[in-house]
Amino acid sequence: MSAINLAIVGVGKIVNDQHLPSIARNPDFKLVATASRNGTVEGIDAYKTIDAMLEAVPAIDAVSLCMPPQFRYEAAHKALAAGKHVFLEKPPGATLSEVADLEATAAAKRLSLFASWHSRYAPAVEAAKAFLAATRITSVQVNWKEDVRHWHPNQAWIWQAGGLGVFDPGINALSIVTHILPRAAFLTSATLEFPENCDAPIAADLQFKDADNLPVHAVFDWRQTGKQTWDIVAETEAGTMVLSEGGAKLSVNGELKFAEPEQEYAQLYCRFAEIIKVGQSDVDLSPLRHVADAFLLGKRKIVEAFYD
Amino acid sequence: MSAINLAIVGVGKIVNDQHLPSIARNPDFKLVATASRNGTVEGIDAYKTIDAMLEAVPAIDAVSLCMPPQFRYEAAHKALAAGKHVFLEKPPGATLSEVADLEATAAAKRLSLFASWHSRYAPAVEAAKAFLAATRITSVQVNWKEDVRHWHPNQAWIWQAGGLGVFDPGINALSIVTHILPRAAFLTSATLEFPENCDAPIAADLQFKDADNLPVHAVFDWRQTGKQTWDIVAETEAGTMVLSEGGAKLSVNGELKFAEPEQEYAQLYCRFAEIIKVGQSDVDLSPLRHVADAFLLGKRKIVEAFYD
Repeated sequence: MSAINLAIVGVGKIVNDQHLPSIARNPDFKLVATASRNGTVEGIDAYKTIDAMLEAVPAIDAVSLCMPPQFRYEAAHKALAAGKHVFLEKPPGATLSEVADLEATAAAKRLSLFASWHSRYAPAVEAAKAFLAATRITSVQVNWKEDVRHWHPNQAWIWQAGGLGVFDPGINALSIVTHILPRAAFLTSATLEFPENCDAPIAADLQFKDADNLPVHAVFDWRQTGKQTWDIVAETEAGTMVLSEGGAKLSVNGELKFAEPEQEYAQLYCRFAEIIKVGQSDVDLSPLRHVADAFLLGKRKIVEAFYD
Repeated sequence: MSAINLAIVGVGKIVNDQHLPSIARNPDFKLVATASRNGTVEGIDAYKTIDAMLEAVPAIDAVSLCMPPQFRYEAAHKALAAGKHVFLEKPPGATLSEVADLEATAAAKRLSLFASWHSRYAPAVEAAKAFLAATRITSVQVNWKEDVRHWHPNQAWIWQAGGLGVFDPGINALSIVTHILPRAAFLTSATLEFPENCDAPIAADLQFKDADNLPVHAVFDWRQTGKQTWDIVAETEAGTMVLSEGGAKLSVNGELKFAEPEQEYAQLYCRFAEIIKVGQSDVDLSPLRHVADAFLLGKRKIVEAFYD
């Protein structure tokens, strides 16, 4: 199979930091075009809109959509209509229903749709899943606390309705939790803190349980300065498991069990090539479903205004 | 097949108004027990909890769960664990994830789970679906406006987080729209009005479109006094279609095309008997998914406090 001709739509920070290096190192892909209002990639044909790009470059086989989620459906629908495979950055859309529609369209056209969750490919995630599968869990605590000013400077879209707010990083935690727990959990109560000048939450406190009443408690907070925390702690019969640094390190009872260099996006592109080769889609909506459930069920608390 | 021994959990207004008359007229069902904190049915064994009822009456084949949605999962899970078929009043749960969990449990245990949407069985709904399938639609307007003080007096749970507020009736409209439109629509923007003393909205304005850019606009309002409105209006190449009175009447260009007496719950119990007989479930989450999407994507507007 020759290389998959890939185009990127929405050239911004995540594309420069993660997508481009991963694509450059993956022989399955050849970057042939970009579409973006402002961003470009040196040496690659650049267009302002996906329509212009699809029109001008018929050799495109697949597109990676990296614009804010509020604008992703329309581009994804156009790409699928033009017969292209589609890689969706996380979160895969602004609503559950639109992603369900894309999934149906991709299936009808026998194209591969990939709703990517990069944190699931963090180095120690599979080791954590294997550890939990071999013991009995008694409780789970998720702490996902970071400084939004550092990680999302001047990204106005994350504070708009549909921009998810603190669930933008929080959904990474949920994508790991839904992958490593032995049974599906679901939300039982939630409190979301909205800055008085924003349409998206800056913090969330979430209580889940599963069918066996396992308590899962998650705290997301975007006001953390100093040390940043992306930890999942499980109390189990085999000891206290800590999956830390966003899934990079696994410890049990304080002893480091697993740590490898991070290569999440490299693995995402391996997975994308794999599903294209076998003619499948990979769309697990459960992380976004938990976020929608949190907005549906959660109590809202208005807190201090936020200024970037 | 002998009659299905049925139990009801949560004996309140909807049970007395709708479930009991429909069950009494349906030879497929025999009501054998109830569980409710307060309500009872004359002549039927009454228990305070579903646990006590399931323990005391092993002959129960199926249960109808009619308590507020915040408390439905636990009862449904117990009923399925005890090997009973389950009828869920609408909405089927407090979160999408919990209903997905119930669906998986029912499938694993080969039991029938019915997420009921009574408005889909309103008299003229099938006639509307057939009319729309035979023409091209250019726009859809949904007006669902009623007086909450009349229809939900002193039902505190509907104003709590997870109680859905105006989406409690609005989800009836969504259950019809998702059934009669030729393609799936999805939300593009929304405004939800929350009374300053409530955790659930009193009004909502929703803009949807489908893959072919059909505009669908829905207005839900719980502050309507005087004439009550439950209408779905579609502009089409074959004229203006009005599905009015919550699905009871169909008119085209002002001419009445279809009107029959309402028998929604009678039909729901026919459907429940049918899926039990053939060993299937009937769980379409799309109406609740649209509601979750509205909470996820919607802008919030704080409005005047509401007092019952």
